[in-house]
Amino acid sequence: MLPVALDAMGGDNAPGAIVEGAHRAVAELGVGITLVGRPEALADLKGDLEVFAASQVIAMDADPASSVRTMKDSSLVRSAELVRDGAASAMVSAGNTGATMASALLRMGRIKGVARPAIATPIPVFGSTPTILLDAGANSECQPQWLVQFAQMGAVYARERYGIVEPRVGLLSIGEEKSKGSPLVKETHELLAADNALAGAGAKFIGNVEGRDLMTPEVDVVVTDGFTGNVALKTLEGGMKAIATAIFGALGGLEGADDAVGALLPLYAEVDPDNHGGAMLLGVNGVCIISHGSSSATAVVNAVRVARDLVEAGLVDHLRAVVASG
Amino acid sequence: MLPVALDAMGGDNAPGAIVEGAHRAVAELGVGITLVGRPEALADLKGDLEVFAASQVIAMDADPASSVRTMKDSSLVRSAELVRDGAASAMVSAGNTGATMASALLRMGRIKGVARPAIATPIPVFGSTPTILLDAGANSECQPQWLVQFAQMGAVYARERYGIVEPRVGLLSIGEEKSKGSPLVKETHELLAADNALAGAGAKFIGNVEGRDLMTPEVDVVVTDGFTGNVALKTLEGGMKAIATAIFGALGGLEGADDAVGALLPLYAEVDPDNHGGAMLLGVNGVCIISHGSSSATAVVNAVRVARDLVEAGLVDHLRAVVASG
Repeated sequence: MLPVALDAMGGDNAPGAIVEGAHRAVAELGVGITLVGRPEALADLKGDLEVFAASQVIAMDADPASSVRTMKDSSLVRSAELVRDGAASAMVSAGNTGATMASALLRMGRIKGVARPAIATPIPVFGSTPTILLDAGANSECQPQWLVQFAQMGAVYARERYGIVEPRVGLLSIGEEKSKGSPLVKETHELLAADNALAGAGAKFIGNVEGRDLMTPEVDVVVTDGFTGNVALKTLEGGMKAIATAIFGALGGLEGADDAVGALLPLYAEVDPDNHGGAMLLGVNGVCIISHGSSSATAVVNAVRVARDLVEAGLVDHLRAVVASG
Repeated sequence: MLPVALDAMGGDNAPGAIVEGAHRAVAELGVGITLVGRPEALADLKGDLEVFAASQVIAMDADPASSVRTMKDSSLVRSAELVRDGAASAMVSAGNTGATMASALLRMGRIKGVARPAIATPIPVFGSTPTILLDAGANSECQPQWLVQFAQMGAVYARERYGIVEPRVGLLSIGEEKSKGSPLVKETHELLAADNALAGAGAKFIGNVEGRDLMTPEVDVVVTDGFTGNVALKTLEGGMKAIATAIFGALGGLEGADDAVGALLPLYAEVDPDNHGGAMLLGVNGVCIISHGSSSATAVVNAVRVARDLVEAGLVDHLRAVVASG
């Protein structure tokens, strides 16, 4: 397998934690990694890893579109070019999410027939495989046909990443009845309920689902527009953070709570985004993994693992086939 | 104060838990209550509470609009009429949410100048006053001007219910920059940022907020359309339920975890909807409290308490004044 292009400059903890994660990924996963970034920033960290020089860094809060247009020698743009040029099998970044999407879209291009790429994010489910939520923020306005394609791509992704043979796809709404929701939801419901909408993707449409179903094992793929998906994702992240802070605060000062804390840590690990390998931009011509901004070295290892697994599974070819048939 | 009209037939645990809550509310709060419902169903439960006879019950899953139109002698419609007719100070129901809204809207009518009523739901914040989220589901499609009015009404509500002198109002979006979000968000942002938009309501617009801000003390009122608001609310409810189940599962089998469970129960109480007194339909000509479907007797007591407090505070008059000036 070709090496994974890793944006060494992206993320709150770059380049230190990113490069540390790269070393661990090479050792633990046996995968090749090309660090992309400023050679002088990486000189002391790189060890025997290969560095592809990129002189610019797109800041976490920079405007995505204009940054990608003007910073042609940025680590993000160069990472995407390595995939485009057949020099890397996948790209991974914990940097500016919008700029990561724009780099991948502009340099790798879309899979033929894909209207819009979507961000597919795993939502943790205790004791079960995660629920794939898409679009989690790439397109704040969507058309019904795009959502149907998100459903097809999300189903393929759920199968390749989590081994779900016949993924159950739900449409995010505010009631289970098909009469509930926005015009977008109602039109999309009609399209998804048509006999052949998800047949090519080997998936099953189970109708509308609600926000409360996201963290349950009742659904495998949840489709929505990027505005609603991003709100749901961040609402859940905020809720988890608030409750984790409150719990560890309540138990922190408690004598003899070590066993209880010990029993809760595995639960925390189940929802910790560092352990989920990041989100994927589905619909571009290559594997593009978006790790969260505060990624640790462990998050990088897991993101690289997911990238490797999806490259080896031939995900992009499967997506291409399903979109072509859909 | 006039008695509170309590829909004795609404909710998963009606009429038993509802009437039990009514007795407790009378004893604990010293407020008068009129039970509204089928006399034969209430005969053995009512004790010395007054019953206003209503022969029909709108089912939890019935279609709201047609039910309210055809079931003129339902407990929900009669409850709203008691408020309209000056026989009750407020109505409280744990029944069908859509039918509760429709009953209140059709029988009480809107406050003059209100474009659309909105559901205002308190989101718990550990160690702080709740964040008011509106619209939490009344209007799945909204116009920017409606959201400005929601902001005004939500601010008045935050002041009267939680004593927040100058409520901070945020607009739910997918990024803090005003360039982020849907067309609805961008237009609403412009309107809310205008100098006098929230001056009459004594509130301050703090710009866009994200889902992750809902459970923090950084914002008092969060405004959004009813589709997004309902998704956010249910996502949070589902997340809280998933994590509470996982935590009590992990600690349940653990020797010596009693102290830890004891330390966590107060946190659970902070997020338990039974303790929050329910949501309110803002913008109708009267106090209408919507308690959740699985309301216990405690939830009923808290809903009646909120109804009493808001009647005594003259909330509807304050809303009327702000809407007239806005």
